[in-house]
Amino acid sequence: MTYCAALNLKEGMVFASDTRTNAGVDHISTFKKMYTFGVDGERSIIMLTAGNLATSQAVVNLLRSGIAQGSAPNLLNLPSLFDCAMLVGEQASSVAKTSQHRAHMQEGFGSNFLLGGQINGQPQELYQIYQEGNCISATEDTPFFQIGESKYGKPILDRSINHESSLEDAVRALLVSFDSTIRSNLSVGFPIDLMVYRRNSCTLPAGIRVDDSDPYLHNIRAQWSEGLKAILQQFDVPPDYYFK
Amino acid sequence: MTYCAALNLKEGMVFASDTRTNAGVDHISTFKKMYTFGVDGERSIIMLTAGNLATSQAVVNLLRSGIAQGSAPNLLNLPSLFDCAMLVGEQASSVAKTSQHRAHMQEGFGSNFLLGGQINGQPQELYQIYQEGNCISATEDTPFFQIGESKYGKPILDRSINHESSLEDAVRALLVSFDSTIRSNLSVGFPIDLMVYRRNSCTLPAGIRVDDSDPYLHNIRAQWSEGLKAILQQFDVPPDYYFK
Repeated sequence: MTYCAALNLKEGMVFASDTRTNAGVDHISTFKKMYTFGVDGERSIIMLTAGNLATSQAVVNLLRSGIAQGSAPNLLNLPSLFDCAMLVGEQASSVAKTSQHRAHMQEGFGSNFLLGGQINGQPQELYQIYQEGNCISATEDTPFFQIGESKYGKPILDRSINHESSLEDAVRALLVSFDSTIRSNLSVGFPIDLMVYRRNSCTLPAGIRVDDSDPYLHNIRAQWSEGLKAILQQFDVPPDYYFK
Repeated sequence: MTYCAALNLKEGMVFASDTRTNAGVDHISTFKKMYTFGVDGERSIIMLTAGNLATSQAVVNLLRSGIAQGSAPNLLNLPSLFDCAMLVGEQASSVAKTSQHRAHMQEGFGSNFLLGGQINGQPQELYQIYQEGNCISATEDTPFFQIGESKYGKPILDRSINHESSLEDAVRALLVSFDSTIRSNLSVGFPIDLMVYRRNSCTLPAGIRVDDSDPYLHNIRAQWSEGLKAILQQFDVPPDYYFK
């Protein structure tokens, strides 16, 4: 399994993905699930993938070879991010239809994608792309998307993130969301790839890989754990009728 | 869907279940998923069910008619809670094999059960029973079980509950766990049935139904929401290398 989340906020966007892949509990590997495409100053596109790794990698290879050949419509020459999302959808859908991938698709092991970024002069956008080839766009009401093993880490994002949240708050909430997921589910694991894109920079950030030994992560984890206990203990004592 | 959780703690046990059933988003009803069996002073058994409602109700009816007939081994005359859990497993497994229920079973819509309580003179115990008919028992290391839509509400229990937790802390953590799940997932809904069993009382508590309008729940929800925001804001600012 996999956990990826992307946030489309007023100040910019934050992307995060874990790196665990597993085929059974004894066949675990580390794979990056964050891919970038861009030209400094012109366009920055960040893509996260979840689901069948063979399918995701086939799609990424098709996207890259499209750029390398330079002729057909590709992620670096399409006029809008919506067109880019549709291209990913088309590629994913055509890969899924090939005989090697069809079996996984029917078993529910297809791939999903999050694609976000900005083309110079256009608004910053974030899309969730389904393997069927269609996509939806994040809005001010729904500023984040998750793919993969998303349930454990959803409540903290639901409660703490809105479109006005700062990039710092987003990083904090994402770290808690990933740490909670990793703690509760074996199939999601460290390190986390994390990338913060600032609105209108139109330049790809370097991004960082947050390892289990990262001191800031340890700091957050300790403060979160103590903070939660403190909140629960500060709650009023349940009234007597709860113990009837 | 459904969300049920049960905790086996030093001071007693706490059981909670939501009441939503749905067949599609426009066919929603309220059904109690908490069942009790007992004789005051002798034995108290509390059972929670998740999954296919027809299957769960068929199992409960078999268990009740077994008690009414009084002859064969039933929940009120079996010598141990383990035997009771095995009886539920047998009934569930035989119901699942009947032609009316088999189709659901194959599609993954079978039922799961949590059964806990105490027989006078014996230890308090909690079992999770699978539709295949086998069961596992909660331990000091793993003091709680969840069935149904359990992922949203697992991190808070993972972080806050251990075998030594007080019944008050358990009620608080369960309310947060249920409220988080209900907020993130349409298929789990209020009211919640909640029952606190005190160790060695061997008498069934009345239990309460916590409605969305319960003042203590509102209190908890507000304190939790404010508390979470406060923790996130008290976190140290992420270091510069997070924004490279």
